[in-house]
This record gives sequence, structure tokens and C-alpha cells, in this order.
Amino acid sequence: MNYPLHLLKLIESLKKLPGVGSKSAERFAFELLKWNEESLHSLAKLIDTIPSKLKTCDACGCLQGEEACSFCRRPLQDSSKICILASPRDVYAIEATHEFRGHYHVLGGMISPLEGIGPEQLNLEKLLDRIEALAIEEIVIALDSTLEGDATALYLKKLFHDRPVKITRLAFGIPMGSSIDFVDGGTLARAFAGRSSY
Amino acid sequence: MNYPLHLLKLIESLKKLPGVGSKSAERFAFELLKWNEESLHSLAKLIDTIPSKLKTCDACGCLQGEEACSFCRRPLQDSSKICILASPRDVYAIEATHEFRGHYHVLGGMISPLEGIGPEQLNLEKLLDRIEALAIEEIVIALDSTLEGDATALYLKKLFHDRPVKITRLAFGIPMGSSIDFVDGGTLARAFAGRSSY
Repeated sequence: MNYPLHLLKLIESLKKLPGVGSKSAERFAFELLKWNEESLHSLAKLIDTIPSKLKTCDACGCLQGEEACSFCRRPLQDSSKICILASPRDVYAIEATHEFRGHYHVLGGMISPLEGIGPEQLNLEKLLDRIEALAIEEIVIALDSTLEGDATALYLKKLFHDRPVKITRLAFGIPMGSSIDFVDGGTLARAFAGRSSY
Repeated sequence: MNYPLHLLKLIESLKKLPGVGSKSAERFAFELLKWNEESLHSLAKLIDTIPSKLKTCDACGCLQGEEACSFCRRPLQDSSKICILASPRDVYAIEATHEFRGHYHVLGGMISPLEGIGPEQLNLEKLLDRIEALAIEEIVIALDSTLEGDATALYLKKLFHDRPVKITRLAFGIPMGSSIDFVDGGTLARAFAGRSSY
């Protein structure tokens, strides 16, 4: 399309957002053209200041604002438990369940030979220190049910197997509200293997 | 969700984009957290400079970059024709058909009593001047097939009815590739009324 250069650049940049193709990016760009100067400046500033305003906590890897990490300083009911996750976003998903009130530790990724991510790129050194310092008794592995999640979980299991800590992983099975004939075979197999007395 | 304040503000701002709800805005925001400082700054600058880099041409209302309006200065095959549209974006849709090589005139909206938009808010004064100055012989109304489009088209028809110009409107009918039993009654009725010898 013979759009003005600035519009083309804007569309290209918006296309880098997840799930946004040419059509959506064009729609966003033309919508932005209708915004007033103040709204545009406000959004631009919010984007531009992300690196200074939103950081990950040095200790736990969770997202923190300008103030100290809210996850590190809150009172805990399960202070002997630590939940290991791949990304800061996952923390909020677990938080929303209200099932866990312990420490979090974000790895910042998962082991993926395809993407060239090995254990050394993950936030593991701090994890070892924290498990010692916080006198952790249970490590809860909350990683995706993917090849990368399984590889990382296995690595963690081996890393801690000679320590006096309990290692658990989130259960795999039928999602709530699903009927058995709609669930894929892999899920069903894991649900079978993980069955409990009822 | 107990997100840091900056993240919440960013999500709120992104939600103003068309078709973006809470879930998509969160997804975009968390994706932006992964971008490097340079990419963030580049997108922020593109958004911030929209008002100065992308304007609408004073004469025709089309979108123009920093240089003079490309629609006003290009050579025309149909220099006695002018196509009237609602928004700058519609111009590119018509351009892509390669069916028209005349002048464009963007109204900047359509008559809508519900939204309080009357003829006086539309770019009509310039249109009258241009029709005179360019010695226009045909006015092609390319407006949506909606209540607002119909109201605006009718207004234009009345406005020009005593002038020696031909007034036409884009045809309404069955979209290409559609089957008759899937087309709604209103479209079918207009297709029937607009039937041509075959």
C-alpha cells in the first residue's frame, strides 16, 4: 500500500506485537491517527519508560515497579515453600488461584536446545542461595507442560535430588469443565497416570 | 490483577486500540516487557510524532507525510472526476482497485445525528471550491452502505442537484464469491433493484 513513510514504519513496528498481522497493525495505526496529541504522548511515554519503570527483582525474578519487590517483602503463610516459574507473568496466574502463599522464583526462561537456552542462562544461582537462606522444605515446580517445561523440570529434579527438600510439580490432567472425549490422548494418559483415590 | 502501576497504566492505554480487550492488552504489555530499549524507544517515538509527521491534506483531506500531498500532485487520467469518501483510509482501499484515476475528496466523517455530526462538521466548503476550480464533470460518492453513509450521500445529492455535474454512487449488490443464499435480504433487495442487462 502506498502509505506515507511514517505510517508504514508504525505499521511495521506494531506488527511485532503477538498475534498482530498486517491487517490488525493497519487498523491500530489508523486508530492512532484519530487519537489526540495528549493520548498519543501518554502512550508513547508509557512505552518509552518501560525499561526504567518495570524491572525484574534481583532476588526472585518477579516483576517489580519503582518500589521494592512486593513479592519479596510480603508476609507469608508458607515461608518454607518456593514455587519455580518460567516467566514473571506466570506468577500472576498462580497468585490468582489463591492456592499458594510462599516464595516465588522466576527462572526467566526454560531450557530449550533449539533456541540455544541452557541451564546457565536461567536464574539458578540465586535459586540455590535462596533455598539455603530461606530454609526451604518444598520446591513446587510450576512449569508448562511442554518439551521445554519437562526438560527444565527434569533438570531441577536432578539438581536438588541430594538435598533434604521435597520436590513437587503441578498436576497434569483434564482441565476443569472439559469432557473426556474432547481431551487429547497425551493429557488423558497423564491424567490416568496421576489418578488419585476417590 | 496486582500488577505494578506502570504495567496497569500501559494495559489501560493499549485497551483503547480497536478490538483490544483486557486479555490482548495484557499480552501486548508483557510482550513489550521483552523488547529491548531501542525497539521500545523507536515505537514510542513513532507514536509520539504522529501529529507532526502524519497530517491530512488541507485541500483533499487525504493522508500526507511530511512532503506535499501525493494525491494532489500526481498526474490524472480522469481529471474531471472526483471521488468523495468518509475517511483517509478509504482512499487506499479505492486506490488498490486501480479502477479510478481522478481526484479524491475526504469528508472526514459522515452525517450522524446520533453522534451529533452534521454537514457543517464535514469538509464540504473545500469540496464546493474544488468542484468549481477543477471543472468536475462527475462526482462519485464512495460512502459506506450504512445509515450514516446513506444520509450523507442523500445530502450530497441534494447539494449538487442543480449543478451541471453527473452524480454517481458505488453499486450495492452481492459481494464477489458469495452465494445468494448466504447474502442478507437487504443486500439482495439492492442487488435486485440495481440489476443490469446481461
